[in-house]
Amino acid sequence: MKIAILGHGTVGSGVAEILIENANEVSAAAEKNIELGAILDIRNFEGISYSDKFVSDFDEILNDPEIGIVAEAMGGTEPAFSYIKAALEKGKNAVTSNKELVAEKGAELLSIARSHNVNFLFEASVGGGIPLIRPLYSAMNAAGITEMAGILNGTTNYILTKMFRFGSGYEEALADAQRLGYAERDPSADVLGFDACRKIAILSSLVWKKTLRPEEIPTEGIDKITAEDVSLAETCGFSIKLIARAKKLSDGKIFAKVSPALIRNDSPLASVNDVFNAVLVRAKTTGDVLFYGKGAGKMPTASAMISDIIECAKSENNIKSVFWEDGAQSVFAGRDSNAERYFIRTSFDASEIIEGAEIIGENAYITSPLSESEVSVLTDKINEHGKLLSKIPLFE
Amino acid sequence: MKIAILGHGTVGSGVAEILIENANEVSAAAEKNIELGAILDIRNFEGISYSDKFVSDFDEILNDPEIGIVAEAMGGTEPAFSYIKAALEKGKNAVTSNKELVAEKGAELLSIARSHNVNFLFEASVGGGIPLIRPLYSAMNAAGITEMAGILNGTTNYILTKMFRFGSGYEEALADAQRLGYAERDPSADVLGFDACRKIAILSSLVWKKTLRPEEIPTEGIDKITAEDVSLAETCGFSIKLIARAKKLSDGKIFAKVSPALIRNDSPLASVNDVFNAVLVRAKTTGDVLFYGKGAGKMPTASAMISDIIECAKSENNIKSVFWEDGAQSVFAGRDSNAERYFIRTSFDASEIIEGAEIIGENAYITSPLSESEVSVLTDKINEHGKLLSKIPLFE
Repeated sequence: MKIAILGHGTVGSGVAEILIENANEVSAAAEKNIELGAILDIRNFEGISYSDKFVSDFDEILNDPEIGIVAEAMGGTEPAFSYIKAALEKGKNAVTSNKELVAEKGAELLSIARSHNVNFLFEASVGGGIPLIRPLYSAMNAAGITEMAGILNGTTNYILTKMFRFGSGYEEALADAQRLGYAERDPSADVLGFDACRKIAILSSLVWKKTLRPEEIPTEGIDKITAEDVSLAETCGFSIKLIARAKKLSDGKIFAKVSPALIRNDSPLASVNDVFNAVLVRAKTTGDVLFYGKGAGKMPTASAMISDIIECAKSENNIKSVFWEDGAQSVFAGRDSNAERYFIRTSFDASEIIEGAEIIGENAYITSPLSESEVSVLTDKINEHGKLLSKIPLFE
Repeated sequence: MKIAILGHGTVGSGVAEILIENANEVSAAAEKNIELGAILDIRNFEGISYSDKFVSDFDEILNDPEIGIVAEAMGGTEPAFSYIKAALEKGKNAVTSNKELVAEKGAELLSIARSHNVNFLFEASVGGGIPLIRPLYSAMNAAGITEMAGILNGTTNYILTKMFRFGSGYEEALADAQRLGYAERDPSADVLGFDACRKIAILSSLVWKKTLRPEEIPTEGIDKITAEDVSLAETCGFSIKLIARAKKLSDGKIFAKVSPALIRNDSPLASVNDVFNAVLVRAKTTGDVLFYGKGAGKMPTASAMISDIIECAKSENNIKSVFWEDGAQSVFAGRDSNAERYFIRTSFDASEIIEGAEIIGENAYITSPLSESEVSVLTDKINEHGKLLSKIPLFE
């Protein structure tokens, strides 16, 4: 079976390298011969050992009956969507690392895949090299998953780790991440939480079988976290992580949120540092399960695509457990549907304390007096409120 | 497709409950109707809602053509082995939670399963509810796994956690574990490391495709760890965990070992506390990946068996990546094949220091003077040596 790779960037070239260098292992795992057929990229790769594989016209791939699997690593919704759609309609399997595409167009592509009895898989779109998507749709399929909470963005996790370890401010830690290549020059997709938002939308859609649209999820980044927040959290025995969450409520709706959150130091999520990712999955039968590993990078991501290629090669037919309904009816429960405890810093004057007492609830307590004019409080379970100097939910 | 459960103990009754209470979810996940057919147990379960399912003669199950999957939860090698062998030879799939059976007889049963084109799966035998076996034989199949290190026994992890948190001695922490039902009255299989040994033997055999025999693995328990070891490790920034390890050496042989080991506090294994289990998997393409969750208990283990039942129902044919060769030729590399750093406590007299200097190597350093007569040292990478008061390898 021949594979076509769409896009010879970081991830695509990793896939090509594994297909060539580990050809025997991949074929053994797939229980059939797997071979690199073609690579779509308009750039010139003349010096490269497999330069004869490059094509610049997608139709050459589409019309090659020997190509059974298309591996898309171009990113963005177009032309990725059109190419994958055409491939599926032609009876070819497709795998992708493209989280934007899966979050936006997953339901549609899965439906096309199902009606043509082929697979559309996307292990590499969330959590890089961590086996995550497949355990969720196979091993944990009937476990009764009630909640997921993930550190799904390596860039922000690196920045927060740096702020905790060295007391750096946000700007300084970001500059450091940019210098090391962990953050892009325009870091907004990462630091404002949009990347993590797309990923939790994918996980929620996959697990609860209905599209959760990324644009509905309240999303807050790490750009407002200060060295003071960090120091205060540390004093109180917490870490701060950018947590992407989704939770199935009793009415079947989904509460989801991306925001910085307090993590108790004894939680397994607290020791997920640097560019590592992790997802905590809560299920009725298994209790808490955590998956941890490198969430990005050339080889981890390429490796995840290879595992999907192997899965496609082995599953002759559409895997029915990888499917979700379109988002015509919203499943999002609303941002005030899940009360939680918040860690707040608020200015310390009499009127605010009186007003605050109502807001923060009976079981709130002062964690630490910051100065004469400011106080920090861990609130009771409350819904979101404005007016506070800084407010970080506690993940329990 | 009907399921027969062998043994209605803790795990077997959990499987029965899930099959009955979550019948719809299980059938949906399996993409066909799944139904509890029979339960083999000679005891009397008259009051129970599904008491009509009990049989006392295995032949009734063997000769029932509607039963397509046998779920063994009896434990021990016999009669479990004979029953599963007979079922496989009759063309039925088999799943088990029985680590002793898989460690001792895995190669033979897998070979029988293969020649009858049915599946023999054992997700529940290692790591309870953690999806672990399947990711290793599917998603990470071609990732180039080089090493695994696991906290695979909840009882010992509970005891060590207790010793670290409260400064308890070993005996006190064990008594506490027994009181809570985490340790058996005869705790030797857990505390002496035999349980963890069987589990790492299974993981090694599965990943590197050759039987690693449990009896070849040097196995040391936690019964000699003292409150002093704990306090000293803590002072130096380490935790102590019972670590079961396996590593593929450059000559293709496997180094394996079960022993208490030092874990740096910033390692993801360090925050695996109480009865939780975790396995760190190192692979060429993905880097470090960690799987974490409840390693035992009725529902987590039953849930893992259910995931195997679903897998069997979906895979009509033998899954070829679940297979390993018999242990006719040993793959064990020998206990001195892997030099590592040790944390030692040794008595502080002149003759030992001179002798010690040769043993502990150039890059050793004194971590802390304990008293006038004792000193603790982190050695260079060395092979095992005797004569030291207490000696714990560092897992890096």
